[in-house]
Amino acid sequence: MIQTAIGIDIGGTNTVLGIVDKDGNIIARNSIPTVSHPDYTIFMNALCKAIDETIEQTKEKTDIKGIGIGAPNGNYYNGTIEFAPNLNFKGIVPVVDFLKERFDYNVIVLTNDANAAAIGEMIYGGAKGMKDFIMITLGTGVGSGIVVNGEIVYGHDGFAGEIGHTIVYPHGRECGCGKRGCLETYTSAPGIKRTIFELLSTMNDLSELRCVSFEELSAKKIDEVARKGDKIAQEAFDYTGEILGLKLADAVAHTSPEAIFLFGGLAQAGDLIFEPVKYYMEKYMLDIFKNKVKLLPSELPPGDSAILGASALVWKELDK
Amino acid sequence: MIQTAIGIDIGGTNTVLGIVDKDGNIIARNSIPTVSHPDYTIFMNALCKAIDETIEQTKEKTDIKGIGIGAPNGNYYNGTIEFAPNLNFKGIVPVVDFLKERFDYNVIVLTNDANAAAIGEMIYGGAKGMKDFIMITLGTGVGSGIVVNGEIVYGHDGFAGEIGHTIVYPHGRECGCGKRGCLETYTSAPGIKRTIFELLSTMNDLSELRCVSFEELSAKKIDEVARKGDKIAQEAFDYTGEILGLKLADAVAHTSPEAIFLFGGLAQAGDLIFEPVKYYMEKYMLDIFKNKVKLLPSELPPGDSAILGASALVWKELDK
Repeated sequence: MIQTAIGIDIGGTNTVLGIVDKDGNIIARNSIPTVSHPDYTIFMNALCKAIDETIEQTKEKTDIKGIGIGAPNGNYYNGTIEFAPNLNFKGIVPVVDFLKERFDYNVIVLTNDANAAAIGEMIYGGAKGMKDFIMITLGTGVGSGIVVNGEIVYGHDGFAGEIGHTIVYPHGRECGCGKRGCLETYTSAPGIKRTIFELLSTMNDLSELRCVSFEELSAKKIDEVARKGDKIAQEAFDYTGEILGLKLADAVAHTSPEAIFLFGGLAQAGDLIFEPVKYYMEKYMLDIFKNKVKLLPSELPPGDSAILGASALVWKELDK
Repeated sequence: MIQTAIGIDIGGTNTVLGIVDKDGNIIARNSIPTVSHPDYTIFMNALCKAIDETIEQTKEKTDIKGIGIGAPNGNYYNGTIEFAPNLNFKGIVPVVDFLKERFDYNVIVLTNDANAAAIGEMIYGGAKGMKDFIMITLGTGVGSGIVVNGEIVYGHDGFAGEIGHTIVYPHGRECGCGKRGCLETYTSAPGIKRTIFELLSTMNDLSELRCVSFEELSAKKIDEVARKGDKIAQEAFDYTGEILGLKLADAVAHTSPEAIFLFGGLAQAGDLIFEPVKYYMEKYMLDIFKNKVKLLPSELPPGDSAILGASALVWKELDK
């Protein structure tokens, strides 16, 4: 029997799950739509059914140790999803309590998706053996998981690690969270689109992007034209890198990590984003921190990172 | 025999030391000038002599458990002071190694002064029983000590907790650290003086402060005229509070503390500073953190806080 953990990632559109061994191999997987279940009890029942089916597929060969769940606004202490703006379920959803009534594992834990990604990096990825690091997820939003002394920082209320909502410009861009000028509004995938449109208004350079609407534009397209020499797209990467570098320098001043990992769509732009982030992070850091902090791409496979991260929660919990 | 610890605070001008019991009573105290010893070996020899004299005074009644040292740019891991801009000693000063050759205690530890203040608050002050809090020291500079899960965050290199050098405006005021726009340049005692001079240039209101030179002006004077209704001084407190509130909201997004303690000269302005800081901190925080984080004055006696904080390092170490 192989020792395994169930990893579940609850996303705005879909919820994916997998049974994962200690080396990060996914032995079975499944998914259900999240959006089509407006009521959380109906969703949770569908999720339990999907878990049962997946366990059934592997029951001859796996010894399942627990369930780990990554979710937006996931609270580790309470095992709940609380007021997640991108999910249909409103208010507080008691995910862990619900699963505990249906499954008999000692370990059933939940945290937010960026914390799960950080734990995934620590168990299966590039942060193996690191005690102090930060994971930054650059996707539709900007998430973060902060690790200090080998443990995720959950803080007093279980919600620590929201670097995406630190403020760059107090009167800046409107953020989905209700504030203005959050890091997320500049360095997420929609953030770099917003920067392109700002630059199309302030710069005079010719650009392919002048023929693309806001709705049509994607971070992938910006990457593509930047590589072909488009000045506006290149400037957008530099601007994004400066803002992310500035706020990462602030993050270093808080917890002085050994490394910062970048993960998610925008991180896949490689040098286009890593070079300016590194340059500006060094520029804005205090002398004592300079040339010490590694800026690294996540080593988790992009497609499976959510399941891996969630499953890693179980191994982390068993390690305690 | 009373169990005690020696607390030493190495400051730019003077170095103070005391023998402190577990309740925070200072049983004996001593001090030597720091500035008059340009060479660190001469200084360290003078310090050892002062320690010997102080021990001698209390040796009949105290059982000394160790030595704790607070110092600018103090590194906990290395027991060193490293490149402290406000001290005469250049480069790396191996304080703990030096003391270990002269004293036979199991515990001889050093950290930076703001971390020592945080531990002092945890052992003797208002943070007793708290697991997650932040100490902000508002003096000539702005220091911070971040506590997560009951432990100071030292980070990978021992230098974590430099919130005073997070950046408010990348092209803002020149900071002593060589960067621009650090929090310290706005919310330290010299920072609020700088704000007064900026406001004297931008506002037209009559003010007593129009007759005071930069050199003559003190944070105490600004406090005094603000209480008498001086518009410029009041605006300076509001501006200082907005900037500190903004960066404390960022700090909350990192480690989600139960409380933030303000300590030092500027914190003694009471409501004048606490009210705007609290208002803007709430304004700039993410909804999930609002109305949760206590903003509190330090409960350490101002005159003795440095000795108390340094001595508390010893109790903290023995608790491990």
